[in-house]
Amino acid sequence: MNSARMIFTSDCSTVSYSSSGTHLLSSGFVLPRRYYSTGFNPLPLPSLRTQSLPLRCSGSSFVSSVSVNPEACAKVIDGKATAKQIREEIAIEVSRMMDAIGVVPGLAVILVGDRKDSATYVRNKKKACESVGIKSFEVNLPENTQEEEVLKFIEGFNEDPAVHGILVQLPLPSHMNEQSVLNAVSIEKDVDGFHPLNIGRLAMRGREPSFVPCTPKGCIELLHRYNIDIKGKRAVVIGRSNIVGMPAALLLQREDATITIVHSRTPNAEEITRQADIIIAAVGRANMVRGSWVKPGAVIIDVGINPVEDAKNSKGYKLVGDVCYDEACKVASAITPVPGGVGPMTIAMLLSNTLTSARRAHDFR
Amino acid sequence: MNSARMIFTSDCSTVSYSSSGTHLLSSGFVLPRRYYSTGFNPLPLPSLRTQSLPLRCSGSSFVSSVSVNPEACAKVIDGKATAKQIREEIAIEVSRMMDAIGVVPGLAVILVGDRKDSATYVRNKKKACESVGIKSFEVNLPENTQEEEVLKFIEGFNEDPAVHGILVQLPLPSHMNEQSVLNAVSIEKDVDGFHPLNIGRLAMRGREPSFVPCTPKGCIELLHRYNIDIKGKRAVVIGRSNIVGMPAALLLQREDATITIVHSRTPNAEEITRQADIIIAAVGRANMVRGSWVKPGAVIIDVGINPVEDAKNSKGYKLVGDVCYDEACKVASAITPVPGGVGPMTIAMLLSNTLTSARRAHDFR
Repeated sequence: MNSARMIFTSDCSTVSYSSSGTHLLSSGFVLPRRYYSTGFNPLPLPSLRTQSLPLRCSGSSFVSSVSVNPEACAKVIDGKATAKQIREEIAIEVSRMMDAIGVVPGLAVILVGDRKDSATYVRNKKKACESVGIKSFEVNLPENTQEEEVLKFIEGFNEDPAVHGILVQLPLPSHMNEQSVLNAVSIEKDVDGFHPLNIGRLAMRGREPSFVPCTPKGCIELLHRYNIDIKGKRAVVIGRSNIVGMPAALLLQREDATITIVHSRTPNAEEITRQADIIIAAVGRANMVRGSWVKPGAVIIDVGINPVEDAKNSKGYKLVGDVCYDEACKVASAITPVPGGVGPMTIAMLLSNTLTSARRAHDFR
Repeated sequence: MNSARMIFTSDCSTVSYSSSGTHLLSSGFVLPRRYYSTGFNPLPLPSLRTQSLPLRCSGSSFVSSVSVNPEACAKVIDGKATAKQIREEIAIEVSRMMDAIGVVPGLAVILVGDRKDSATYVRNKKKACESVGIKSFEVNLPENTQEEEVLKFIEGFNEDPAVHGILVQLPLPSHMNEQSVLNAVSIEKDVDGFHPLNIGRLAMRGREPSFVPCTPKGCIELLHRYNIDIKGKRAVVIGRSNIVGMPAALLLQREDATITIVHSRTPNAEEITRQADIIIAAVGRANMVRGSWVKPGAVIIDVGINPVEDAKNSKGYKLVGDVCYDEACKVASAITPVPGGVGPMTIAMLLSNTLTSARRAHDFR
């Protein structure tokens, strides 16, 4: 439980990591997929590794160096409540579709191997599907399954008219080529939205992706539902992963924000982030974005879900975001909490993409 | 010759356009494709519309308001010479390939209609191919050709092993669906690199596009050949077109620059651009980027090629970039001229992509 070490300097504004502390950080700014691509905050799983951090990132040095009102507090962007509302809307639409044309949207999930965390995510997706009336199809294959076997199942689901979305739970066992497995999913059923053709369409003006990747879609949906203006705003996306940072930036640009993508090779990330009206943090580093990084009044969407040691907690850890909430909420105008922010939105967007796919397949409006 | 009007305010730093002056500007920040996607600076064609501009954009107001050395001059990034060198390198490789395996790379160009400018571009491409030993295939179809006819030719070239690159000259006649015609080009022969699958791969870490679009590739090639560091630098791309701005930003990000994309909805474009170590301007607005937009020492790649009125010129116009060269060269450390900058690089990159395609098809290294 102590694989990562974070060293705070005396003024609390500079953070460095020891070389041994790279487990969660080894991908640089790329948040490990299993922490957010599933739509649920990670449950207390034995395989979780925590970062060793002070539990509170704020300190007197921050408060004294930045002009903030210690009593001020940003509006909380409640992802849990918003996701619940969206699931209710989806349930109504699923039921309307069933009544009108007798079609039930279907989502197939393929799980290979026996990772406990993956099994939990798959179970959660299944439960979420059931809660809105989407039929879920589940395939569990042993760790030593051959790639061809997985491809055969994908092909079957590609052909199956009862299946409108296909999801391959990652990570796959190391003997498989993740890229070719994912590419086998029909573009019409790629509800994850990770196919390069989808990403290309997302990047291009005048083109429309079949599906928008769930986590970045969830981020933008939160901004929309909280009536936060995007057009003409400066947006800084921290992290350039294929599944969150990059598509989030493309989405913001589609809505006429001026985007900057900050990443592990950006020397002055703090200075650049401080220019943002909207910050999307998707890095996978606990509390990296400090209060001093935030322009007063900025809106913060925190995608990170990082377990950090917490002796007071019976599980031995707690979850924090990429943003130091205690500090940032004193400067920002609105902020997502962790947990309960972006996390619950991802799976709501997965359900939404599945419904969209079913509607499209049956030309149902 | 006077369809566009530009109104300078007294301090020369704010530019606005009259509503009647939108011919060249109607796409907002999107540079009309015919001005740069062909690899050649536009030749004196009767259809060119000019912008009505003072011939020199610098004035005492700029020099007095920005701290510059009026004698200083940036290094000129010579696109013409660099393109010539690249063409020579390609010619050597083409000849080596012919000698080794008897294969000649082939580029097919499809031209529909009788636009004089398009005909000129196609002729120039053909000449460029010949100059390096690439075989060119040309199809000229009348304006009223049916889309299916064009698709048939594309299909034929897709199948033809002597053709390694296929290029459909744009714009197509208005009765055709540009998107479906372009999508018909096999991804293996899409030397323009505009297929969404290519763009998606360009955007994604760990993926490689089959081809990188020619103009942005030419921009980066200039930076490389002039040993300009990209990694860790701030880069501002002005313009978010599918064929220049957006892919240029993705390319810079692949090389670890921190990118910001400024566009027509960016309220403070000047302030943001002034933060850049590298500026790529691809807007299609004559002299839009003034000296005051440039950080001292920045490197400027000017993609714009804009005809502006010039009574002294026998043709009645001259070509200028998106950057006010006279002002910017006093602040920047290096800058591309217009003409003779990015323009000649585009077609060199088209030849390079065609060679790459032929090598790939025959596994020739």
